[in-house]
Amino acid sequence: METTTAEGRMVVPARTGRGVRVAAGRRVSVVDLDGGQVGDVFAFTADMREHLSAAHTRATTNRLFPAPGQHFVTDRRRPILTLVSDTSPGWHDMLIPACDPERYARLGAGPDHPSCAENLRRGLADLGLAAQVTPQPVNVFMRIPVEGNELRWLPAATRPGDAITFQAVMDCVLVVSACPQDLVDINGGDPTPLAIDLLPAD
Amino acid sequence: METTTAEGRMVVPARTGRGVRVAAGRRVSVVDLDGGQVGDVFAFTADMREHLSAAHTRATTNRLFPAPGQHFVTDRRRPILTLVSDTSPGWHDMLIPACDPERYARLGAGPDHPSCAENLRRGLADLGLAAQVTPQPVNVFMRIPVEGNELRWLPAATRPGDAITFQAVMDCVLVVSACPQDLVDINGGDPTPLAIDLLPAD
Repeated sequence: METTTAEGRMVVPARTGRGVRVAAGRRVSVVDLDGGQVGDVFAFTADMREHLSAAHTRATTNRLFPAPGQHFVTDRRRPILTLVSDTSPGWHDMLIPACDPERYARLGAGPDHPSCAENLRRGLADLGLAAQVTPQPVNVFMRIPVEGNELRWLPAATRPGDAITFQAVMDCVLVVSACPQDLVDINGGDPTPLAIDLLPAD
Repeated sequence: METTTAEGRMVVPARTGRGVRVAAGRRVSVVDLDGGQVGDVFAFTADMREHLSAAHTRATTNRLFPAPGQHFVTDRRRPILTLVSDTSPGWHDMLIPACDPERYARLGAGPDHPSCAENLRRGLADLGLAAQVTPQPVNVFMRIPVEGNELRWLPAATRPGDAITFQAVMDCVLVVSACPQDLVDINGGDPTPLAIDLLPAD
């Protein structure tokens, strides 16, 4: 499961998650293969002691979501990823937590419904790792417009092949979950796969 | 340090934090004694296994900040506090993390600058408790307008005596930090005290 040096594409099947170690300087794209699909992206320092923090990133960038060239930071306020580029319509969310068994129970689903929180756990376990918390993810392609105080949940507007690209500022662990949400309309009711493209360092 | 049953006022001196156990049903007001002061409010379940989660509260209420009558929920999506009433101008923040030693180091302050994260730790320690994480707080009276993707940091608009009132949905532990931020203008450059008013149950 050593993927630090490999380049190429790792498919994240619909409703599942995949983790990868990313060396500092390496670029990674998250690709919406079929369009209209949300991805929950989590990042941890290589020692798993810090995680990408949505709240600290908002405070550092003074934005709800970073602009290209800006950093995502950890809960110790250290830059971990840079937002490099984005070919999607530009909708991404950093307000909403990962879906989890509690969420699906409240929506009336059974206990076996997959979730981004469980996908994170499994994606890390595949790398021999575990997280102490389920951090608030970077929800790529997720369309949550903010109008005054109100949030709306809309279907992702991504087209097939749209991609958002990050660069690792430090050695880190990245997990991408192809969000299995099929009871709220964010994935158009039909969860589909994503891909993680590992690109060469600059 | 048993405060579960007491009623009355506990002053939170400027730049410090205070914790209190609150029984289910009990109402608690956070009062801005001198005006223009931000408070970081943290809540934990009595067993300290869950904490009030800003992200889960946004997803539950579909709002950046709950409206009166709505619940704040834990990271397991269980209601922990209800927003009862608010006599302030209505600015509160649930986007920004607690200030912490890393924040002040980046602002050029020395390592002894007080912080809401450290006030949380001490407020809990006074109750014989400890948290595994520093949750993203409910920043009462904090004025962070959202304009499109952009956040601005403005001085609190509170008047002396303004108060926001919560009701405990379950037995919980509440910590209030009188935010010591004096290098960013959210407290008008002059941190002042707050008060925790423990009110009777309904």
